[in-house]
Amino acid sequence: IIVLGGGMVGSAMAIDLAQKHQVTLADYNKEVLGRIRLRCPDLAFTQLDVTNTRALQNAVSDFDLVLCAVPGYLGFETMRSIIDAGKDVVDISFFSENALELDALAKKRDVTAIVDCGVAPGMGNIILGYQNERMKVTDFECLVGGLPKVKKWPFAYKAPFSPVDVIEEYTRPARLKENGKVVIKPALSEMELVDFKEVGTLEEWNSDGLRSLLATMPHIPNMVEKTLRYPGSMEFMKMLRYAGFFSEKEITVDGKKIKPVDVAAKLLLPAWQLEEGEEEYTVMRVTIQGVKNAKAHKIVYDLYDTYSPETNTSSMARTTGYTCTGAAQLLLSGRFTGKGIIAPEMLGANGSCFQFLLKHLKERNVFYKRSASDG
Amino acid sequence: IIVLGGGMVGSAMAIDLAQKHQVTLADYNKEVLGRIRLRCPDLAFTQLDVTNTRALQNAVSDFDLVLCAVPGYLGFETMRSIIDAGKDVVDISFFSENALELDALAKKRDVTAIVDCGVAPGMGNIILGYQNERMKVTDFECLVGGLPKVKKWPFAYKAPFSPVDVIEEYTRPARLKENGKVVIKPALSEMELVDFKEVGTLEEWNSDGLRSLLATMPHIPNMVEKTLRYPGSMEFMKMLRYAGFFSEKEITVDGKKIKPVDVAAKLLLPAWQLEEGEEEYTVMRVTIQGVKNAKAHKIVYDLYDTYSPETNTSSMARTTGYTCTGAAQLLLSGRFTGKGIIAPEMLGANGSCFQFLLKHLKERNVFYKRSASDG
Repeated sequence: IIVLGGGMVGSAMAIDLAQKHQVTLADYNKEVLGRIRLRCPDLAFTQLDVTNTRALQNAVSDFDLVLCAVPGYLGFETMRSIIDAGKDVVDISFFSENALELDALAKKRDVTAIVDCGVAPGMGNIILGYQNERMKVTDFECLVGGLPKVKKWPFAYKAPFSPVDVIEEYTRPARLKENGKVVIKPALSEMELVDFKEVGTLEEWNSDGLRSLLATMPHIPNMVEKTLRYPGSMEFMKMLRYAGFFSEKEITVDGKKIKPVDVAAKLLLPAWQLEEGEEEYTVMRVTIQGVKNAKAHKIVYDLYDTYSPETNTSSMARTTGYTCTGAAQLLLSGRFTGKGIIAPEMLGANGSCFQFLLKHLKERNVFYKRSASDG
Repeated sequence: IIVLGGGMVGSAMAIDLAQKHQVTLADYNKEVLGRIRLRCPDLAFTQLDVTNTRALQNAVSDFDLVLCAVPGYLGFETMRSIIDAGKDVVDISFFSENALELDALAKKRDVTAIVDCGVAPGMGNIILGYQNERMKVTDFECLVGGLPKVKKWPFAYKAPFSPVDVIEEYTRPARLKENGKVVIKPALSEMELVDFKEVGTLEEWNSDGLRSLLATMPHIPNMVEKTLRYPGSMEFMKMLRYAGFFSEKEITVDGKKIKPVDVAAKLLLPAWQLEEGEEEYTVMRVTIQGVKNAKAHKIVYDLYDTYSPETNTSSMARTTGYTCTGAAQLLLSGRFTGKGIIAPEMLGANGSCFQFLLKHLKERNVFYKRSASDG
């Protein structure tokens, strides 16, 4: 197996898979590879620039499976090259382009290309895919957040990924489904307070996280993803957005043309930086409502996962990366054989795949607690 | 009389003085002069670049008195040139340099140069100067703010002067006197809520406004100036300061070196812009405590002044500018004859000057309400 990208999630995936497989980790940055080598000498390492298509296709040619954990803006083209090289791939780059554009190529190359295979997107889709086969779903809601345990003024937030991507969550309009129609609402809109047993009250707001579900679940009338943060902390982000600090439109300052969002990302990087060993957690609540056996039915899956001090692995890396390594095992073991672009809900639709993934995560102490009620 | 600077305050002063005097208004910008000509055809106008010393000294040579209302960063050098030309001057440019450096030159040229002659600095100093002659002062506190009547999210603020100068209020450490010692505290520190009859609860915080009082009132053990804003609104400014958006230290963004504060000022300018005809007000409370006739004595002066729709003059221009025109009348009428650099508290120390100024302001509907109590 080759894992592309030695970031927080990519390295956690490589280390996890190395328990059972021969794994090579590729990254553009040699220093990053050097640091990971100290933590996990079992891995092989290779320096690679994924924007060099020939080098990329050459690098993946000797492997049975590729895991793609490159930055989002590189994701789509990297996936195209991997698929074109005829290699099965599981992706967590969360690129913004439409993955289905690669479906024809993937089928032509007889390739399985699983995309968005993290926690959210990822497990939220997988859970819905599973339940969608077992009941008539009318409502899907996914609440999700990755937060630091210790909250500090002013942001009460640390970014498990790059500030530019976090800022995009605060600016990109959210697509959701209401009464059968796709509606678009501003990011950070419809804020509500919601309680969690382990972490208390958080704030939920509309974010653009439904992605493939808008295409694959046209029969579900109500679907929404909301992001979770500490209450009140988003007021600062609303202000920055309102005043133009997140704008991509160039302004002239002291005779120089710059994008305000680049200034904001640069300044917020140190303030949002997760410290080495800083404890964070992932909280997710997936609520699915509908009709089962002619009765109103409601199922809730709750996830609360924390940083692992034993392995020094962040919860974001655990919940995202271990979903992806679970999908990798599904492919390697022959349990899933679909070809083309595979959205995670298509994995979940297969009951034995779903159970396999839950077991895979449970073995890594990532627990989804299920509760169901008829009403 | 020549008034230098046709901004909000400068133009209000020129129009006020034109009722009794021949007044010329000078500005670098011909369009600004054109707009004021429409409002007040009685004025004479001249285009002038005050950074051209020869042109400046030539321009003031024919006048009996100069009022200086140029931007703060031009103030000190403009004052030096005016004094050097042998002209009496009253200044409201609020420059950051130490005015006393010009004292020797002013005395040599036999010139009266009154500085900081607005509302605060200005009337706060004048009131203290007056009371300091009549009681043993132990405590001086000046609370002051200029605010829009209608408060809008997120800033609940409009800037009566340039955003860079407002941002400096949020960043420059505040010098105050405590128990006889000068202490320095961060701007925006020691926030407290305080009630005003006309506008309700506001928030007060340490700002660097004592200026000349630190030098002229060494015997007063406790002195503080605090700025007033709508409660909660400064949380945004604290965050921007904390995250570095107000920093003057260059950063490199997209290969270009810029100062974050320049970006912030550019973005905040439209958000803080006072609209044409938008109602704003000035609120000030000067509290002086000490001993009089061997008894504890406390005097409070309250100012609440609003935008004048009749003359379309902002309250900030009224309260600042009419203090300055009052001081101009003191000079022209021969009531005040001191030479050198004159801090406003030195005007207030003269009882008849003080009463003259209060009457001058009252005639323009700017009322300082006095209440005294023995305890």
